[in-house]
Amino acid sequence: MAFPDPALPARVRIHEVGPRDGLQNEAAAVPVEIKAEFIRRLAATGLDTVEATSFVHPRWVPQLGDAERLMELLAQAGLPAGLRLPVLVPNRRGLERALALGVREVAVFGSVTESFARANLNRSVDESLAIFEPVVARAKEAGMRVRGYLSMCFGDPWEGAVPVARVAGAGRRLLDLGCDELSLGDTIGVATPGHVGALLTALGEAGVDAARTAVHFHDTYGQALANTLTALRHGVTTVDASAGGLGGCPYAKSATGNLATEDLVWMLHGLGIETGVDLGRLTATSVWMAAHLGRPSPSRTVRALAGTPSHQES
Amino acid sequence: MAFPDPALPARVRIHEVGPRDGLQNEAAAVPVEIKAEFIRRLAATGLDTVEATSFVHPRWVPQLGDAERLMELLAQAGLPAGLRLPVLVPNRRGLERALALGVREVAVFGSVTESFARANLNRSVDESLAIFEPVVARAKEAGMRVRGYLSMCFGDPWEGAVPVARVAGAGRRLLDLGCDELSLGDTIGVATPGHVGALLTALGEAGVDAARTAVHFHDTYGQALANTLTALRHGVTTVDASAGGLGGCPYAKSATGNLATEDLVWMLHGLGIETGVDLGRLTATSVWMAAHLGRPSPSRTVRALAGTPSHQES
Repeated sequence: MAFPDPALPARVRIHEVGPRDGLQNEAAAVPVEIKAEFIRRLAATGLDTVEATSFVHPRWVPQLGDAERLMELLAQAGLPAGLRLPVLVPNRRGLERALALGVREVAVFGSVTESFARANLNRSVDESLAIFEPVVARAKEAGMRVRGYLSMCFGDPWEGAVPVARVAGAGRRLLDLGCDELSLGDTIGVATPGHVGALLTALGEAGVDAARTAVHFHDTYGQALANTLTALRHGVTTVDASAGGLGGCPYAKSATGNLATEDLVWMLHGLGIETGVDLGRLTATSVWMAAHLGRPSPSRTVRALAGTPSHQES
Repeated sequence: MAFPDPALPARVRIHEVGPRDGLQNEAAAVPVEIKAEFIRRLAATGLDTVEATSFVHPRWVPQLGDAERLMELLAQAGLPAGLRLPVLVPNRRGLERALALGVREVAVFGSVTESFARANLNRSVDESLAIFEPVVARAKEAGMRVRGYLSMCFGDPWEGAVPVARVAGAGRRLLDLGCDELSLGDTIGVATPGHVGALLTALGEAGVDAARTAVHFHDTYGQALANTLTALRHGVTTVDASAGGLGGCPYAKSATGNLATEDLVWMLHGLGIETGVDLGRLTATSVWMAAHLGRPSPSRTVRALAGTPSHQES
């Protein structure tokens, strides 16, 4: 039974990040055949966007050192024709590797804060943008769609709360470079709904349309879904999520898991918002992946649906 | 850093249910001295309402068979003068036991659906109300404050989705019997934000003021905080929550945990909403209780704060 709210969008596009953002944090690398099968199953649930991998140097993220082989396997997997399979590219070299494999959509990854830019990317915020500029230009020239990730949009472990004006400025610059879409990351999961509203308002004032803005929440403090609901009220229609809540280690002291796609779909379908996703198949996919990883899914919806029949969907 | 929203209340009263709703589900009974210490620590965090126990017959809930002894211990515990310590009373006999111990506030517990009334209370909905009538009357006569719980307000495992008009009618009847406040329970955790809005609108149309309505969400599908945010937008200012997310077994297949008080407080303080609660002390209390129970707290905020410094509160 669905209860639509006219203040919310009729349809939401889910940008599934489990295979990339989830699996890049696994201590033990997942075999490339399992990754390809995971993506095949995710596509079969009706998801129309699955971020497949990252063309980062294997020295930095050895878990994704199989990016070429994965894309070859996916090309033979008989995936749905309209499926979007973006990949992350950290620099020009990564972009060329992706282009050589026929990738149609890429994402670049920047930080809003100097501390995280230094710690994670080993460069300043301005240096990052300078590196992105030719990457984005070349990708657009090749007819690709380009997403710009911004991390630490709400809080930073070293700098504390991040001013919304600074995030709005960085977002505006990524769009000016040619990015088609922004993804606002709450990397350490500290955002609350009022902060989400304030940031989206500031972005709007900087000329960034909510229709070009995705949100990427982590459930570290349990706020991801309440924050998502607030973003939808501000006109956002693209939400990043990770099947089964993959990403980080949810049972570690400092949980950093992504919003679980299943928890998101449960809310959206309850609100009568279309996603195109079959929740039963998605849950089965996450249960399958959890068995492979040898630990239960942190998604509450996965745990509930895997144990009992769904009361909402019947 | 707080981001207030003028559409939300300035202050929320948290009705802490951990000692009763949480501990009644523990397989092994918790020693009464630990319960008393738990309540003492909860009160010291600034919570102004802590539901202490239930005067149900020990045959049904043996975990709470120590209700008399607990109240005696609490009377000697030097609790803050204004602290509210409601107890659940299932019938006239329970009420008399509570009155004899000087309890000032009680709650009665009804179901909206016939199936759950039969399964949990072994009587029909109308029979429950008939039993409550003299209980509420006697409690009011004795100058007590009375809360009326309604369970299965959104979905029922046997009956599926529950019509909002039926819940509104049951709520209206409990107030007509003399209850001061309603608590709307999503016992199986299936509610989504649109459903919450629809129910609160129906209650308003039945003459039930949101100011007299509390919400009681379970996080079975991860929806509790998004639902709470929606309830606040509809004028609700009392929210039930359980310290550390106690209640049910969050690691079992069908998780049925209560909304964790810490996750709620993180959101409310981020929105600039006063609670009077010290989040650090509350987290420490839940860590202490989790150590006693021998398993980690399912609250994401507890896990995050217990492992790393708080970025929001600094």
